[in-house]
Amino acid sequence: MPVNVLFAAREEKWEDYEQPLRHALAKAGLEADLRSQFPPDEVDYIVYAPNSWLQDFTPYTRAKAVLNLWAGVENVVGNASLRIPLARMVDEGLSQGMVEWVTGHVLRLHLGIDSHINGQDGHWRPTAPPLAKNRPVTILGLGTLGTACGQALAALGFPVTGWSRSKKSVDGMTCLYGPEGLQQALSGAEIVVLLLPHTPHTENVLNAETLAMLPKGAMVLNPGRGALVDDAALLAALDRGHIAQATLDTFRTEPLPPENPYWAHPKVTVTPHIASATRCDTAAEVIAENIRRGEAGLDFLHLVDRSAGY
Amino acid sequence: MPVNVLFAAREEKWEDYEQPLRHALAKAGLEADLRSQFPPDEVDYIVYAPNSWLQDFTPYTRAKAVLNLWAGVENVVGNASLRIPLARMVDEGLSQGMVEWVTGHVLRLHLGIDSHINGQDGHWRPTAPPLAKNRPVTILGLGTLGTACGQALAALGFPVTGWSRSKKSVDGMTCLYGPEGLQQALSGAEIVVLLLPHTPHTENVLNAETLAMLPKGAMVLNPGRGALVDDAALLAALDRGHIAQATLDTFRTEPLPPENPYWAHPKVTVTPHIASATRCDTAAEVIAENIRRGEAGLDFLHLVDRSAGY
Repeated sequence: MPVNVLFAAREEKWEDYEQPLRHALAKAGLEADLRSQFPPDEVDYIVYAPNSWLQDFTPYTRAKAVLNLWAGVENVVGNASLRIPLARMVDEGLSQGMVEWVTGHVLRLHLGIDSHINGQDGHWRPTAPPLAKNRPVTILGLGTLGTACGQALAALGFPVTGWSRSKKSVDGMTCLYGPEGLQQALSGAEIVVLLLPHTPHTENVLNAETLAMLPKGAMVLNPGRGALVDDAALLAALDRGHIAQATLDTFRTEPLPPENPYWAHPKVTVTPHIASATRCDTAAEVIAENIRRGEAGLDFLHLVDRSAGY
Repeated sequence: MPVNVLFAAREEKWEDYEQPLRHALAKAGLEADLRSQFPPDEVDYIVYAPNSWLQDFTPYTRAKAVLNLWAGVENVVGNASLRIPLARMVDEGLSQGMVEWVTGHVLRLHLGIDSHINGQDGHWRPTAPPLAKNRPVTILGLGTLGTACGQALAALGFPVTGWSRSKKSVDGMTCLYGPEGLQQALSGAEIVVLLLPHTPHTENVLNAETLAMLPKGAMVLNPGRGALVDDAALLAALDRGHIAQATLDTFRTEPLPPENPYWAHPKVTVTPHIASATRCDTAAEVIAENIRRGEAGLDFLHLVDRSAGY
């Protein structure tokens, strides 16, 4: 009897994912019936995007797990009708894309590349930037993405400090935690990268108070979650020159509305939530592996702790 | 009796280097007399910049070695009056700066960062770039700098091919050599990085013929030597759209004159020979170590093979 797999995401995603998922399920040795519609009580697994039509899980009486297509789970984790295991997407492509975006933008800010792109005026100004070893970087968040980015930056020579709410340890980085650790992590950072999950505890983690802990001239990267930043406080800190630059990939409202002041701010670069995009091929393999594990009676990978919210 | 060390470089460099050199010589346990002027026949070692006033080495009858402050030796290696060992600068800072510049600009081109910096127009265009593993990079030149850059890029996931005139092998990279290897190295490259020394064999290595070997849309980085590029051929390839972008840090004439077409070309970014700047502190330590070795009767490090020209 085949395993019934429901694909619950927006219609255009079905076009992107159908073939990669069929291929990955077959490759995992599964006889699966994959569809974008099913009678709810016949579904074994739900491949899920939190912005899909499926918001009431109650009728899915037989389903064994919800396999999220996104790394972020904040729009599903609090769904009271969800009573089966929820797995987040931990996709090699997702993590790798984030490492590339973070490393690229840290180096861009470190090397002052914007001044070259915008300064092709015939004047030769041969001032070399400092070396990476003299440019401390702090990463808020030591999950899969924060750890991978921190280690890539450390390999390039940056002194990297990582901060998390609870105590952690990562090779090659100075790890700090808790409220006191946050003060220390920010006060020495020339570049700060936000890679925390969005939870009630991390909302507005970058606010007037914590921005003031950063040294004057610090630069901010937010490829994490829009709600980590108090937008008004960041704009004020940019305007008074305390923060030199912000490059933001995530926002409270996406797409970021054209009238949002970030677009026109001379010290802000907006990128359109591309740092960590799920790539269909690698994501499909993660989904198929979790279905294989479920059918084999093994634990699911990447389960969400719903009490913690991530 | 102290070792007499002549510092032969432009005057402003004496200000930069005097203290770091005194410090490094003392740290190396040497009793040295360091000056920017000496009677030639009293000099034991010459710390040397090829653009200095010293062009005739004949009167330096007692000198044991010329210790170059630059990585590039093309403006001294052919000097017929030079008959003592010549050591190039192989400075950790020099190599590290190059790795940072090359990695930063490869990621900038790979991620399409310019389109974000210049495209803050309120339009949300959420197209993620490919992953690094799908962006082949070729490095021409597998000396200290080419090898270090190639390994840094490979660590970030780029498939890296390295090319050298003679056969070499580097972990993590596909290594090709000779004329046939060059065709293969270029034909698969989306980004090509020039890190060859300037010799009669490498002059204009990037010319109309080799540019045509690159796939349409390829991008060029030249942090190596200006003379590696046939400038007219590169401008023509950019104008007809075969090459999408060139970022150039080195030029036949430096400073690059304001009227040079590279400055105004929309597909060219000029950076002012900053990729690999000698940092005084680390360079002084390399110089001191070579003097220590000379006094101890050991072989000099980083000796130039003058028959090969590098």
